[in-house]
Amino acid sequence: MSASAGTGFVLKVGDPVAAIDTPALVIDLDAMERNLAAMAAFARTHGVRLRPHAKMHKCAAIARLQSAAGAVGVCVQKTSEAEALAAAGIDDIYISNEVVDRAKLARVAALARRVRLAIAVDSQEGVERLAEAIGAARATIDVFVEIDVGHGRCGAPATAAGLLAQHVASHAPPEGGLRFAGLQAYHGAAQHLRGAAEREAASRHAASLGSAARASVTAAGIACPLVTGAGTGTFAFDTASGVWGELQAGSYLFMDRDYADNAPGPNTPRFEHALFVKSQVMSRGTSHAVVDAGHKSHAIDSGLPRVWQRELAFANGGDEHGILRPLSGGSAAELPQLGETVWLVPGHCDPTVNLHERYVALRGGLAAGVVEAVWPIEARGCVG
Amino acid sequence: MSASAGTGFVLKVGDPVAAIDTPALVIDLDAMERNLAAMAAFARTHGVRLRPHAKMHKCAAIARLQSAAGAVGVCVQKTSEAEALAAAGIDDIYISNEVVDRAKLARVAALARRVRLAIAVDSQEGVERLAEAIGAARATIDVFVEIDVGHGRCGAPATAAGLLAQHVASHAPPEGGLRFAGLQAYHGAAQHLRGAAEREAASRHAASLGSAARASVTAAGIACPLVTGAGTGTFAFDTASGVWGELQAGSYLFMDRDYADNAPGPNTPRFEHALFVKSQVMSRGTSHAVVDAGHKSHAIDSGLPRVWQRELAFANGGDEHGILRPLSGGSAAELPQLGETVWLVPGHCDPTVNLHERYVALRGGLAAGVVEAVWPIEARGCVG
Repeated sequence: MSASAGTGFVLKVGDPVAAIDTPALVIDLDAMERNLAAMAAFARTHGVRLRPHAKMHKCAAIARLQSAAGAVGVCVQKTSEAEALAAAGIDDIYISNEVVDRAKLARVAALARRVRLAIAVDSQEGVERLAEAIGAARATIDVFVEIDVGHGRCGAPATAAGLLAQHVASHAPPEGGLRFAGLQAYHGAAQHLRGAAEREAASRHAASLGSAARASVTAAGIACPLVTGAGTGTFAFDTASGVWGELQAGSYLFMDRDYADNAPGPNTPRFEHALFVKSQVMSRGTSHAVVDAGHKSHAIDSGLPRVWQRELAFANGGDEHGILRPLSGGSAAELPQLGETVWLVPGHCDPTVNLHERYVALRGGLAAGVVEAVWPIEARGCVG
Repeated sequence: MSASAGTGFVLKVGDPVAAIDTPALVIDLDAMERNLAAMAAFARTHGVRLRPHAKMHKCAAIARLQSAAGAVGVCVQKTSEAEALAAAGIDDIYISNEVVDRAKLARVAALARRVRLAIAVDSQEGVERLAEAIGAARATIDVFVEIDVGHGRCGAPATAAGLLAQHVASHAPPEGGLRFAGLQAYHGAAQHLRGAAEREAASRHAASLGSAARASVTAAGIACPLVTGAGTGTFAFDTASGVWGELQAGSYLFMDRDYADNAPGPNTPRFEHALFVKSQVMSRGTSHAVVDAGHKSHAIDSGLPRVWQRELAFANGGDEHGILRPLSGGSAAELPQLGETVWLVPGHCDPTVNLHERYVALRGGLAAGVVEAVWPIEARGCVG
């Protein structure tokens, strides 16, 4: 398999770290497997379902590892992500997002005939459009009513949940194809509040809205089978509330710099960094070094990467370059030499993964590991 | 050709705007061709060569249009970009960046046997490694010595240019494969200074260092055939200095929001926005609307996109969402309806292009145009 888009360079299983062309997206498999097991154990112990968000890893091989560890399926955000993962064999997918475009809904309906599919809605018009497409394809689909639990993005008000659930139920089998499956309640902004107490407060607020929405649904005479949501920053608080029955956390598997910057909460496993960008020094000044990884290799929406286990500060050098300087108080002797490898911990996993064609999965650590697998990132670039 | 990664949805030449799945990267061809012609005319009028930076568009079809309009070839930043464009038929490529990795240099050398290739160096060790690889492949390559003209990233000090040119010349044909071709002098940070006077001052500083470096080369007894560099923000100032003989501007062709935010300089063509992200409203609240384009569809390293010809402010909604609100003082009546199309002007072209598989090239304007072509973005994702 090609190790870099546009090249004929070939990386083989068993190759040493040194053979990995830079920049490259590298998984520390040992760390990832510990994260995988820790989250699976949490869900098992607390009696909640785990449906990890594949918008994070975008990769069928990793989704299969999660399923093998007990996950009930995956979430995605986009129709094209669902199509890409379904094409790679994943057969239980929840598009935890709204789709209202009629051409795209026809694709959703076609996919619903091939795999177990779920989707979110947050408006009456959205329900009608979905019902029309699903009906035309004679498909069935699980439908979650999304409520806004504090993020202020998509989602209906909690008080509108009952009415929307009724709209969904009015298109139930056998006449229609929509199965009301419960509530989507995800507070994205809460995940990255730095203090554990702040996250707990945001989770409590979301839980109260989730409870209110559930009451609105049952008051409308409809059973609410599940509340799904929660992310890596709040899942322990969310679970403790008893409101959520399914966790959608994704980033726990790789842990980016941004999540690691959160103050840890109680009763939460300690996840390790498992995703890295391998970079190389390509230019060396007297007071700085330049690596070959810029923001075309790692997303910077949630801040810059951290240099792994070196006393170096990373500065943005544009699309293709990163600039390294000694941490304040350090000397230029800390600077790496021309050609030297430098490992970066990305600021945000999901959009970083989206920049790469594949993962290089390394066994035995970054320093002396060997390539155990190269995994295609099937849903990379699936924006639509 | 598929209009969205992971889907079977097909977009055909002649299709109307409405057929373009969202989010999509769309070129207004009429605007792009005016930009293309304006820059070509500038270079012709001022007697400088134009070698546009293909790190901006990453696309062989566009490189061919530039060549047809008089460009001498393209620049790229990465070995894999050069390989991808060469594979698509582009045969005069300058990697305006350093490569020091030996495996990658072997690829550079292999490519130098197939196309006219140039590369930059900024260290003696870099010259030696390059010479070794080029020699082993019995290839020849044009070599530019990069000097730091104010950006503080790659590049040797101007005073070191003569010595480095001598190192390059010591590996000249017929014994070696390195042809000293001149100086690389690009001041990236200067391009985005907002005031024209600030950019002029930065260009003047860069020109003085370029002159000094050229003097250093000639004092070393070596002819300096060319100084190459300049970007969309400073090229008119750079050209007026008489130091640069070749312009590398790339963004002029598409004009992003960030470049449009610059105060225009004198004697500079007025370039138009020609690159857009087509998005669609997927959720609608009472005080905001949500479109299906987040920073997985447009890069935000240089700030958020601007909403095109609507009185709407764009707020970051994460990877997959954009949040629209009325501009301050506007009313909620400005908000678009569910399903409505909204056009975005990306903050920064280059990394935005990197997020997409293809361009949809539209003739006749955004409102009522038709699809004239769908161009693959061959060098998308070429990080290595």
